[in-house]
Amino acid sequence: MNFTQNPKGKYDGYCIIKALEKKITSKGSPYLALRLSDSDGDIEAKWWDYHGDSGDEFELFDFVKVRGDYVIFSNEKQFRIDMMRKVHPEDDVRIEDYVPSAVLPGEMMYDEIEKTVIDLRNDEIKKLVMVILESHKDRLIYWPAAKALHHAVRGGLLMHTLTMLRLARSFCAVYTYVNYEILCAGIILHDIAKIYEISSSETGIPGDYTAPGNLIGHLVLGAMEIDRVGRDIGTSEDILMLLEHMLISHHGIPEYGAAKYPMTIEALALSMLDDLDAKMYEFRTAVFKTEPGEFTDKMKMLDNRQLYNHGRSNDGDVDLINTGGNE
Amino acid sequence: MNFTQNPKGKYDGYCIIKALEKKITSKGSPYLALRLSDSDGDIEAKWWDYHGDSGDEFELFDFVKVRGDYVIFSNEKQFRIDMMRKVHPEDDVRIEDYVPSAVLPGEMMYDEIEKTVIDLRNDEIKKLVMVILESHKDRLIYWPAAKALHHAVRGGLLMHTLTMLRLARSFCAVYTYVNYEILCAGIILHDIAKIYEISSSETGIPGDYTAPGNLIGHLVLGAMEIDRVGRDIGTSEDILMLLEHMLISHHGIPEYGAAKYPMTIEALALSMLDDLDAKMYEFRTAVFKTEPGEFTDKMKMLDNRQLYNHGRSNDGDVDLINTGGNE
Amino acid sequence: MNFTQNPKGKYDGYCIIKALEKKITSKGSPYLALRLSDSDGDIEAKWWDYHGDSGDEFELFDFVKVRGDYVIFSNEKQFRIDMMRKVHPEDDVRIEDYVPSAVLPGEMMYDEIEKTVIDLRNDEIKKLVMVILESHKDRLIYWPAAKALHHAVRGGLLMHTLTMLRLARSFCAVYTYVNYEILCAGIILHDIAKIYEISSSETGIPGDYTAPGNLIGHLVLGAMEIDRVGRDIGTSEDILMLLEHMLISHHGIPEYGAAKYPMTIEALALSMLDDLDAKMYEFRTAVFKTEPGEFTDKMKMLDNRQLYNHGRSNDGDVDLINTGGNE
Amino acid sequence: MNFTQNPKGKYDGYCIIKALEKKITSKGSPYLALRLSDSDGDIEAKWWDYHGDSGDEFELFDFVKVRGDYVIFSNEKQFRIDMMRKVHPEDDVRIEDYVPSAVLPGEMMYDEIEKTVIDLRNDEIKKLVMVILESHKDRLIYWPAAKALHHAVRGGLLMHTLTMLRLARSFCAVYTYVNYEILCAGIILHDIAKIYEISSSETGIPGDYTAPGNLIGHLVLGAMEIDRVGRDIGTSEDILMLLEHMLISHHGIPEYGAAKYPMTIEALALSMLDDLDAKMYEFRTAVFKTEPGEFTDKMKMLDNRQLYNHGRSNDGDVDLINTGGNE
Amino acid sequence: MNFTQNPKGKYDGYCIIKALEKKITSKGSPYLALRLSDSDGDIEAKWWDYHGDSGDEFELFDFVKVRGDYVIFSNEKQFRIDMMRKVHPEDDVRIEDYVPSAVLPGEMMYDEIEKTVIDLRNDEIKKLVMVILESHKDRLIYWPAAKALHHAVRGGLLMHTLTMLRLARSFCAVYTYVNYEILCAGIILHDIAKIYEISSSETGIPGDYTAPGNLIGHLVLGAMEIDRVGRDIGTSEDILMLLEHMLISHHGIPEYGAAKYPMTIEALALSMLDDLDAKMYEFRTAVFKTEPGEFTDKMKMLDNRQLYNHGRSNDGDVDLINTGGNE
Amino acid sequence: MNFTQNPKGKYDGYCIIKALEKKITSKGSPYLALRLSDSDGDIEAKWWDYHGDSGDEFELFDFVKVRGDYVIFSNEKQFRIDMMRKVHPEDDVRIEDYVPSAVLPGEMMYDEIEKTVIDLRNDEIKKLVMVILESHKDRLIYWPAAKALHHAVRGGLLMHTLTMLRLARSFCAVYTYVNYEILCAGIILHDIAKIYEISSSETGIPGDYTAPGNLIGHLVLGAMEIDRVGRDIGTSEDILMLLEHMLISHHGIPEYGAAKYPMTIEALALSMLDDLDAKMYEFRTAVFKTEPGEFTDKMKMLDNRQLYNHGRSNDGDVDLINTGGNE
Repeated sequence: MNFTQNPKGKYDGYCIIKALEKKITSKGSPYLALRLSDSDGDIEAKWWDYHGDSGDEFELFDFVKVRGDYVIFSNEKQFRIDMMRKVHPEDDVRIEDYVPSAVLPGEMMYDEIEKTVIDLRNDEIKKLVMVILESHKDRLIYWPAAKALHHAVRGGLLMHTLTMLRLARSFCAVYTYVNYEILCAGIILHDIAKIYEISSSETGIPGDYTAPGNLIGHLVLGAMEIDRVGRDIGTSEDILMLLEHMLISHHGIPEYGAAKYPMTIEALALSMLDDLDAKMYEFRTAVFKTEPGEFTDKMKMLDNRQLYNHGRSNDGDVDLINTGGNE
Repeated sequence: MNFTQNPKGKYDGYCIIKALEKKITSKGSPYLALRLSDSDGDIEAKWWDYHGDSGDEFELFDFVKVRGDYVIFSNEKQFRIDMMRKVHPEDDVRIEDYVPSAVLPGEMMYDEIEKTVIDLRNDEIKKLVMVILESHKDRLIYWPAAKALHHAVRGGLLMHTLTMLRLARSFCAVYTYVNYEILCAGIILHDIAKIYEISSSETGIPGDYTAPGNLIGHLVLGAMEIDRVGRDIGTSEDILMLLEHMLISHHGIPEYGAAKYPMTIEALALSMLDDLDAKMYEFRTAVFKTEPGEFTDKMKMLDNRQLYNHGRSNDGDVDLINTGGNE
Repeated sequence: MNFTQNPKGKYDGYCIIKALEKKITSKGSPYLALRLSDSDGDIEAKWWDYHGDSGDEFELFDFVKVRGDYVIFSNEKQFRIDMMRKVHPEDDVRIEDYVPSAVLPGEMMYDEIEKTVIDLRNDEIKKLVMVILESHKDRLIYWPAAKALHHAVRGGLLMHTLTMLRLARSFCAVYTYVNYEILCAGIILHDIAKIYEISSSETGIPGDYTAPGNLIGHLVLGAMEIDRVGRDIGTSEDILMLLEHMLISHHGIPEYGAAKYPMTIEALALSMLDDLDAKMYEFRTAVFKTEPGEFTDKMKMLDNRQLYNHGRSNDGDVDLINTGGNE
Repeated sequence: MNFTQNPKGKYDGYCIIKALEKKITSKGSPYLALRLSDSDGDIEAKWWDYHGDSGDEFELFDFVKVRGDYVIFSNEKQFRIDMMRKVHPEDDVRIEDYVPSAVLPGEMMYDEIEKTVIDLRNDEIKKLVMVILESHKDRLIYWPAAKALHHAVRGGLLMHTLTMLRLARSFCAVYTYVNYEILCAGIILHDIAKIYEISSSETGIPGDYTAPGNLIGHLVLGAMEIDRVGRDIGTSEDILMLLEHMLISHHGIPEYGAAKYPMTIEALALSMLDDLDAKMYEFRTAVFKTEPGEFTDKMKMLDNRQLYNHGRSNDGDVDLINTGGNE
Repeated sequence: MNFTQNPKGKYDGYCIIKALEKKITSKGSPYLALRLSDSDGDIEAKWWDYHGDSGDEFELFDFVKVRGDYVIFSNEKQFRIDMMRKVHPEDDVRIEDYVPSAVLPGEMMYDEIEKTVIDLRNDEIKKLVMVILESHKDRLIYWPAAKALHHAVRGGLLMHTLTMLRLARSFCAVYTYVNYEILCAGIILHDIAKIYEISSSETGIPGDYTAPGNLIGHLVLGAMEIDRVGRDIGTSEDILMLLEHMLISHHGIPEYGAAKYPMTIEALALSMLDDLDAKMYEFRTAVFKTEPGEFTDKMKMLDNRQLYNHGRSNDGDVDLINTGGNE
Repeated sequence: MNFTQNPKGKYDGYCIIKALEKKITSKGSPYLALRLSDSDGDIEAKWWDYHGDSGDEFELFDFVKVRGDYVIFSNEKQFRIDMMRKVHPEDDVRIEDYVPSAVLPGEMMYDEIEKTVIDLRNDEIKKLVMVILESHKDRLIYWPAAKALHHAVRGGLLMHTLTMLRLARSFCAVYTYVNYEILCAGIILHDIAKIYEISSSETGIPGDYTAPGNLIGHLVLGAMEIDRVGRDIGTSEDILMLLEHMLISHHGIPEYGAAKYPMTIEALALSMLDDLDAKMYEFRTAVFKTEPGEFTDKMKMLDNRQLYNHGRSNDGDVDLINTGGNE
């Protein structure tokens, strides 16, 4: 956590409430159990003296200022809160600086994606993608792409989309028989229903899966949205079928949630570029935390392999995630 | 085949054209390669003398009368056609008698299902199911439930639906916490998009998978139909979510095409009753062809197991499939 | 736990000893570490002042009265015992009220099952089933069906058997070619060797697996019992083979312990009804603990899926498990 | 086939009937379709002129003399029979010379195994093994160990048993903590129920699986036999449990038919030595048919690998299988 | 086959001998069984009148001229050879035109790859790659990349390498933290040991796997070559370890032959780009053979999926493989 | 731990430092967190009063004398150090007595293995094996065979090798067609690159995997060493190929790290004997810790099975691992 020690030895800092629950001690007194988060990470916290009569009630994703101490509990570091209040305008701090977020601002990423759509030559595809994209613009600007895995940061959804789009351009130059228009539409729409699947707020911090997210999932929810919007604006059935197929197949294999295997070359390309971009992100993030010459811990999602930091990444390397100015 | 030998030693019979292709012999003469089918089974056929100038052009699923001989080719029995023509009204034969079909007539099965819907108490569910059911009545009457596996017969789709519905009644009496209304809706709608997935005709003979069938599949196509109709008639989002979840999860596990695992008790019940009814059908059909005390061949779809006919089936046993009166 | 706080602030209650071990503190004093259980659940307990000289020695499954306090240890609630003694007749409490048990009394379930056997028409099967059933009556009345999973409650074995039997009746009415007599015999006998596999006592609380349970298992132990009894009373080899096959195949696939895949239609039906009943029980039990609109935790035994409580279970719903009158 | 060409250009030879079926040509005349076998291999055969009136009816496993020609049918060599009759005593040929069989005579193998039993020191185990072994002596002498895979030759069952026994001696010298008596008993009994599982005759040619073989299998059938005989002669329950566990677990993992994983050190040793001996046999048999420097075809049962004949096998190498004197 | 019919009705053409075997008819006369191949495909052929006394002996991969007829045998088209002789200089035909080959000439592809190496900035890597590349230049020019799957054409090995290299450039522009030098080295060397693994000739037609290919494989053979050459020219151990790791891990997962999972970001990138390029090639090749709106057959190597030709590939599309001028 | 309580109630003992890290308490004071190990096992330890100014700095694998107390922390026993110093010569203790080690001394095992090599008759194989063996003699004497699984003790590598060699002799007597010379070479060399893969010291305690160990692994590292040494001393390519194949395939299947399936009979034998020896060791070690009649905990590496101690191991049984004289 980017907390700073004040002259009295206490720690001060701004952070987001990522989880909170009112509990009762075995002796019957109420307290708050929280998980606090800033751009540097997470920490469990306890506010023992909380009585709920402070006139300042807290909610999930609140942006707050805390003061307290680090303590060790059951072998793990926790934060014991002395004081906590919501952030005031006069604090003059921006929420973006306190959540892990994509390097590029959301608006900038949105603009680049929108420009790609404008440049498409197939009017039918262009119109469909644009209508859906614009209808979600306000949330896309900051939505995360996942709850825990790749691109689970503020703006992660657009970041993931944009990286894939950039790669797709050269990809279609190499594999000239791939239909660039269809591939672009697939990339832009493939994860867009994550705004239904994962709950979040303007903080861009991912919350829980929603009921539709769990029961239907962003693949089918996205295909349904394409179908609904497409029929509304008159997109041809053939185009709808191709795009819907890309949506429901983009996880590549049934075990990963694909309702169908990719059966068109653009569906195949989409699923492979999606996997590639996700793996590069996760790999990079994991290796970034190790010293050169060292291995990461065993990574569950990657067949328990341990990744190696060979210390030879390019010099001009820029960090993937903006962790604010406090680091 | 239910062909009969005429006094001159030739074989005569009525049948359906299940596949046909115009070909050229190595000597350059045209001929017709066909697959003929009646309620008893299939056979490859060749019409060597076909010249295409008979003024009587043939198409897939045509109901025809043939005359010819059985011959052996590459170790398999074939039929060599001397003469073939379309069935005339004066032949006085009914197509239903020449395709494998469910024991109960389609209309009768439809009526029983419709009555079940009428008896539902939840108006929202009742209306949604009724609208979808009625809109497909004409095709449901004869549509098969599969291309090759369980219930791949005329009327098989309704047969499968009806058996499950009958079982569901007592099932809900035993497991009283299961919501009967939701389960019924799921059973009636779960395979309804097979009318989009598999091509067929009034013969009820299953043809190939369609493009939407291959690329989207009846699970997601069905969920989309529920979504479209439901939003149109004002079904609540909550009910739609529960029904759509049942649709996309009813194959039970991803390996079998489920986009999600069943996560509600009715979705679980639906997927297990579906599997149960399909397995009973396949098992029964396979065992029915063996002698008591014998085993079937290894069944690929059933982990290569060989099923055993113990010869102790109940006396009052009725055959599952009506193979016409010719048998 | 259904303990009640007395005027002095201590907690009193009746419970069963589910595990106990004499230990020594790091300072060398002896104490008792126990797991206590009543119809509401389990709790770890410590009796620090135990000296073993109380003239009242304790054993596994003892029915006891305790007094003490709840404490938190390593993040988990424990019970610190001040006093513990065996239940006296004058306490006037029944053990059935202090263990999770099936809703129906064991004798009532046994009678319904016995009546089903009496109504069988095949004398050979009827006699075999009856002999085995009666020989285990005293233990069947209260035996649990599992150590941890489905029906792991007092009387769970008969409860599981009875639910399947009830379902089997309507099942055979729908699938008329299934031999009802054979299926009934399979249902009644399929888990009967769990009385050898799992240790328990009159409390109906499941203990550990026995050595024969681990090394041979209830599938083969049950088949051996059928073979032994059947040869003794002269059952025909053919019937024995069919029933033994059902026993050793009823887990459906090798991965779940089946020595053979089900190869007869009754063996298939048995394995599917068994799986169905177990899944319904587990699903129901898990969902029952969540609020409407909420998901359960990830369920390991169900492919990590999270089950959804849609809040639309039927009104007349009765709880599956009798948790005594204390709740 | 070890047939020889006679002066008139026809082929003569002795062989066993491995399969036979009466059929009707498309022209209505009866003929015999057979599979003939000698120590060199198998061949499909047709006897077109068979009328069934020769007063010499044929059965499966009959030892016959044939005369005829080789013909090509559908790309495969067949034998066209001109004449076939049963072997007469005056032919002076021994059936053993016309079936693939183990190198050592059955009696010699039986004697060595019996001697191993006599030398056991644990009387309980010795008695049980001896009683079962002796009761099957007449069939063990020639029974094959499999229908198609390893040791599927005359006497193959004893050959497999004996090789494992020989290996077990030195194995227990290296791993001194393994109980030699228990391991020996397990080796001798582990496949003995193959005499119930596979049908055969004195020819030692394996026929089909029997009904009990398919439905129960030699693992459980063998455990049942141990249980029955053991209880009859008073073997202790503990010994029976250990041996029965070895029987039902000796295929190592559920996927290969084990009802339980091996859980004792002798059960583990048994399953690994069994697998080792089977693999060595199959590997050797496959490589034996290739030239040095060549690979075998892809072997389905061995993960499609192709085995390599490096041409450096020991000089004193003896062929595993006696293919008679005709080769 | 690109054979042309001459005025007498016979077919003439140039082709390569892809397999040949001297055989004997059932009547004892010798004949040649061959597989002939040109840029259009393969065909089985028989030369019945071959007597081996023509003074013109044939070998695998010979470039020949044939004359004969098409015949049907066992349902498949064959070629019956009347006359066959080796190609003479005066025939004025080039072998490149008669084998399926990469669009770009081998020398041109080699030059582009060499230029990429020259532009590398890390001298150690540049030197190592250059030494290995140059030492195999003569064979690389035409070597195929596989026996049957992706890039199994003349020049396929360089084609596959070059496409990946082109993609790698933009890939490293998007994922700036990837070390371009290491990735390039990995791409160029990853399949280079296929020249040891698969036998071929100047025709570029892939023959069988070699013994080292089968027993060691191109992954480990390549790593060994890097090790040997690297130690010889003094490459640092650290670089060797990184490159060798890429070689042995580039099949991604153990099931596909990787001795280790990719554990560096470049090893991961290499394995994913390799898979991507292979899949694009196979997908494209399969779809190219179908009509728009049609599906391919089930593709074994792609989980039995059927690929869809949506008929919307880009106009400027160039065929992947040069099938000569004869098509 | 083999610590002994001194008259003042403190515990004294000699042990090895298996892990150590300097840490800071939440109050800012430095302390040492260690893992101590002797022949009896491991324990976490804390030295709270450590100031790093003792003039006696510690390193991994140091042999030290400690004094302190046992305490319970988070439910686990720890050791709280009062005093710790390196062992002095005057302590007169041998490191071998304080680490778990193979029963036989390293030199004795080495000699027996060397003698086996000397007795080989194939000069080429003999020379190659001898050169490699001798070059690593100093480390082989004490190297462990694994980090955590089988033979993870001092001298474990030679112990594993020697047991397999002993078994191989009788193995080749039973399977006479196996080439003993090749099998011996494979056994001796198969794990020799573990000296590169796992870090250790003269204590024989296994440390972490090295970078080459993780990235290349002992299978390929060993094959590379054979290739390098073999080419240096002129071993024929054919022999190298056979031995290298054994090295890279000895884990049997890809899932366990084999780069190729075993394809020669000696490679198959090697992989099966390797597996057999490892399983016997692990099984024995696990069962040795249980009481007769009891089961072990579920063993993760053995499909979660629980092993059974039947209490009938041979009397003359010797413990596998020498746990020093202190036990």
